[in-house]
Amino acid sequence: MRVLVLGGDGFCGWPTTLYLSDRGHDVTIVDNLSRRKIDIDLEVESLTPIRPIGERIRAWQELSGRTVGFIQLDLATEYDRLVAVLRELRPDAIVHFAEQRAAPYSMRTAATKRYTVDNNVRATHNLLAALVETGLDAALAHLGTMGVYGYGWSGTAPIPEGYLTVRVPTPDGDLEREILHPANPGSVYHMTKTLDQLMFAFYAKNDGLRITDLHQGIVWGTQTEQTCRDERLINRFDYDGDYGTVLNRFLMQAAIGHPLTVHGTGGQTRAFIHIKDTVRCIEIAISNPPQAGEKPKVLNQITETHRVLDLAKMVSDITGVEIAYPLRPGRLAVGVRYLWIDLGRTSQGDQIEGNSAGLIGDLGYRLTF
Amino acid sequence: MRVLVLGGDGFCGWPTTLYLSDRGHDVTIVDNLSRRKIDIDLEVESLTPIRPIGERIRAWQELSGRTVGFIQLDLATEYDRLVAVLRELRPDAIVHFAEQRAAPYSMRTAATKRYTVDNNVRATHNLLAALVETGLDAALAHLGTMGVYGYGWSGTAPIPEGYLTVRVPTPDGDLEREILHPANPGSVYHMTKTLDQLMFAFYAKNDGLRITDLHQGIVWGTQTEQTCRDERLINRFDYDGDYGTVLNRFLMQAAIGHPLTVHGTGGQTRAFIHIKDTVRCIEIAISNPPQAGEKPKVLNQITETHRVLDLAKMVSDITGVEIAYPLRPGRLAVGVRYLWIDLGRTSQGDQIEGNSAGLIGDLGYRLTF
Repeated sequence: MRVLVLGGDGFCGWPTTLYLSDRGHDVTIVDNLSRRKIDIDLEVESLTPIRPIGERIRAWQELSGRTVGFIQLDLATEYDRLVAVLRELRPDAIVHFAEQRAAPYSMRTAATKRYTVDNNVRATHNLLAALVETGLDAALAHLGTMGVYGYGWSGTAPIPEGYLTVRVPTPDGDLEREILHPANPGSVYHMTKTLDQLMFAFYAKNDGLRITDLHQGIVWGTQTEQTCRDERLINRFDYDGDYGTVLNRFLMQAAIGHPLTVHGTGGQTRAFIHIKDTVRCIEIAISNPPQAGEKPKVLNQITETHRVLDLAKMVSDITGVEIAYPLRPGRLAVGVRYLWIDLGRTSQGDQIEGNSAGLIGDLGYRLTF
Repeated sequence: MRVLVLGGDGFCGWPTTLYLSDRGHDVTIVDNLSRRKIDIDLEVESLTPIRPIGERIRAWQELSGRTVGFIQLDLATEYDRLVAVLRELRPDAIVHFAEQRAAPYSMRTAATKRYTVDNNVRATHNLLAALVETGLDAALAHLGTMGVYGYGWSGTAPIPEGYLTVRVPTPDGDLEREILHPANPGSVYHMTKTLDQLMFAFYAKNDGLRITDLHQGIVWGTQTEQTCRDERLINRFDYDGDYGTVLNRFLMQAAIGHPLTVHGTGGQTRAFIHIKDTVRCIEIAISNPPQAGEKPKVLNQITETHRVLDLAKMVSDITGVEIAYPLRPGRLAVGVRYLWIDLGRTSQGDQIEGNSAGLIGDLGYRLTF
């Protein structure tokens, strides 16, 4: 398949690109490199030494013999170039990762709220409008988030997935209807994914676009079978207060001997998926799109759920670092810019691989100040 | 009250501005004049000779002794100026009309789809972010549309209004929940109003903003008690295929003796409200906002419903022009740029005023080619 990976330089996009390329697909990355630029603004960087996109692609070609294309393009503002790319490449499938993806970042300031909405909504809508304008019948897989459902919707109902069958009371008795699951986003970032859902529903109904919306849990892990073949292919590892997810922050705290910070009771249950599983799910999604005229296919993309406190205990058990319960939320601010975590290679990592939780299996670490 | 009317130069915005000013409120218009500029692109114009905004405001001051402010500002792109305006004026209430409002226009081309989304979503979100940033506790009233509910949702349920109580089946029995009424927009324009709803829900929940979303029916009529006081205050009358609503187009067809074009069966029932009632509803809305922490107040804003065919019959009975049922949809394209409709003043208009339908009461017409 000819596949465009929008946002293909990012944390999920890069491993997906390599996986699909390795599986024989003809992959082109479209990316504006915004994720790297946000690091500059935030004065942070990936703990792993990610290489420039050109070097990444050259290394992959050297190792695999496969060519991956790269087009630097801003989806939210360069509509005409997007249309030209679609007409030129005529992809069979498009994977859409090209959105600002950090909830904390989306809540920092008015500027980051606005950037998140302006970028995410326009990127998605430009893509939909461009598919209609070009008449391209490509399968579109978008990365959503389980956060669209929100928390506290129901204590006893099953975990929501996509649509919900409800009964509507009327004077003539109950009507049964299947509706998009009611949204309850917890941040501006999550809100944009609920806006995406409505745009997908409209363009599927009105224009017959074939869309799969993958509501992912928190993605953990760093390396995949492809990214660990050469250090130049290494994937991002974010641990800052904006882009670092809970597990990454526990691991960093443990690595420097700082107590693992659990906010509140730690009873919040969250869904997780390893990056190795993410990339496999993406291929399954673009290989099994809905038919034209069908509503968007909405799938949860998770492999396990954990309470935050249990995650902390797991990291604590492995590392011997204790858990702290500060009275109120705060941010870890430590001088770890040059700390090095060697991912998935140390003997400790190998030992962890077989543990029953299976959750931090590919993460060993070694301090190298 | 100190009131900002965003989009205060438009078809609903201008009469609202004058009504609120007449009622003693201190009103400032914020508008980028985009509606006038779209007329230039479409090569059409209001049938009524609307005056430049400056002349309108001067005429109103001359007649009423009241000052109305005007700030030319693009909400979607001039965030910093918006914040400065809010800090300077500290309005008690904000009325938000500043969105592209024509469904047909929003579906013309990729460019108009994109303009509708980019303008409407960013205008609304910038406003919400600016209210949070400034900490201003203003009551916000937004003009939505009953089209957010869509048509065909239910044959027997009552007309939807805002929220819907549903029963969700769970293994432990049914849960009852109140949710935002499921959206089913029929155009990109309507879709943007469903996106607005989700942004309102989030900012009300997260930041305590006090928001009323008024889902209006089709607004008809042209003049209000204020706009008819002087010809320089006259309101827009749009009759083109994009901005002219169904009643206006029937009236124009009748005026030139062209059969009234009813598409399909004409059985589509639509909700209507007269512009005189719109302006009153707005004042009621901003005078009765929800409390901080409450979810947005969502109200339908209509006075009557009619089937399209019944509307056509009404116009046909009054004018003697027959109804046509073309096999497929099309657009009326006639050379009526210089046709003049004298609104609400002719003796014919006065006679119509008392008719039982009460629907086209203020519309007389006189051909003056």
